[in-house]
Amino acid sequence: MKTVAQHIPGYFYGTAEVPKSPVSMREFAELQTNAGFTNAEQCCLRLAGEALRGQARQSVEHWHWIIAGIPNLAWHSRAPEGDPIPEYIAKSNLRFEQWILDSCLRPYDKDWVDYQQEIALRHTSTRKNRVEGVRSTPFMPPRDIIAFVAVMNQTIRPYLAAMGNSVEEVEGMHRAWCKSFQLQRALWAGTYKGRNEW
Amino acid sequence: MKTVAQHIPGYFYGTAEVPKSPVSMREFAELQTNAGFTNAEQCCLRLAGEALRGQARQSVEHWHWIIAGIPNLAWHSRAPEGDPIPEYIAKSNLRFEQWILDSCLRPYDKDWVDYQQEIALRHTSTRKNRVEGVRSTPFMPPRDIIAFVAVMNQTIRPYLAAMGNSVEEVEGMHRAWCKSFQLQRALWAGTYKGRNEW
Repeated sequence: MKTVAQHIPGYFYGTAEVPKSPVSMREFAELQTNAGFTNAEQCCLRLAGEALRGQARQSVEHWHWIIAGIPNLAWHSRAPEGDPIPEYIAKSNLRFEQWILDSCLRPYDKDWVDYQQEIALRHTSTRKNRVEGVRSTPFMPPRDIIAFVAVMNQTIRPYLAAMGNSVEEVEGMHRAWCKSFQLQRALWAGTYKGRNEW
Repeated sequence: MKTVAQHIPGYFYGTAEVPKSPVSMREFAELQTNAGFTNAEQCCLRLAGEALRGQARQSVEHWHWIIAGIPNLAWHSRAPEGDPIPEYIAKSNLRFEQWILDSCLRPYDKDWVDYQQEIALRHTSTRKNRVEGVRSTPFMPPRDIIAFVAVMNQTIRPYLAAMGNSVEEVEGMHRAWCKSFQLQRALWAGTYKGRNEW
């Protein structure tokens, strides 16, 4: 297992109480089957991680630049009065970078599945704004997350291709990236059970 | 506007009460921006529709064949005792075929946005099983839908490529397909507000 350069001291940085995923490892195995997520995807993600290792910051800055241009997305990292909160963006961008590397290079074990629950909660009123102690929107609506996934999946591709891998390798890396993201979003779904945050 | 071969007499086939989407057209425009869904995607989808026009049935049969091999997905189209319900599969497959063509060839207007609400409801206890009057699982958990999207996005690609379009065209069609699906899923999200169906 390769060591990932750590920006933050682990999955649960700044978290008082480490969450447990509502999805059991047996159910997670089912979800992997449902998503067609196989060992091939895991191998391609390793390759993707190698390609993205030096470009994680650049990718996140690219996404942040797009978000900054879309008012209804940008306001989720701003104060209620509309003022930017630079330290919030700086720190959540570091977590975002770490998430790219974790998605590609970490084993999808129980810790990783629980970490997905942490990611999900950090988009809801339960944990958004808490780590940095900022005032911003109480939650990020799932539909905005879902829509922006399309942009992330499109924009990551040139970064996957930037290391000179073959067309087939880039194709495989991109397919694996998209599947991993879909799998992660499936893990986040249960977090919204009974919630009114849409 | 091209006429689509209609398997069923329109979006709301078998529906007693035509639903309204909880997403306004202004919010839908925002979602399109969030997803980077532009006129280029709409053009590429038109091209995808031309490629898929004669292959919709084959694509749906392909998906159905995959689903049939995954017990935790297959049971959503079976009776509680596990028996297959051929007429349920036959009719929902026709709607599935129509959905492929609608996704590619219909304008994304108010009718289409409301139709997304119908699709979402047909996966929940509000409307699942109702059109065909069958006994099956009361709802399809969102996480299973989300995971299977990964398979659908992967398996549609060879069908998009089967008509001899250039690599660039197939790439564009596939990107537009994936974005459209993501956009549709964003429209479905609000249907789960306050629900416990996960």
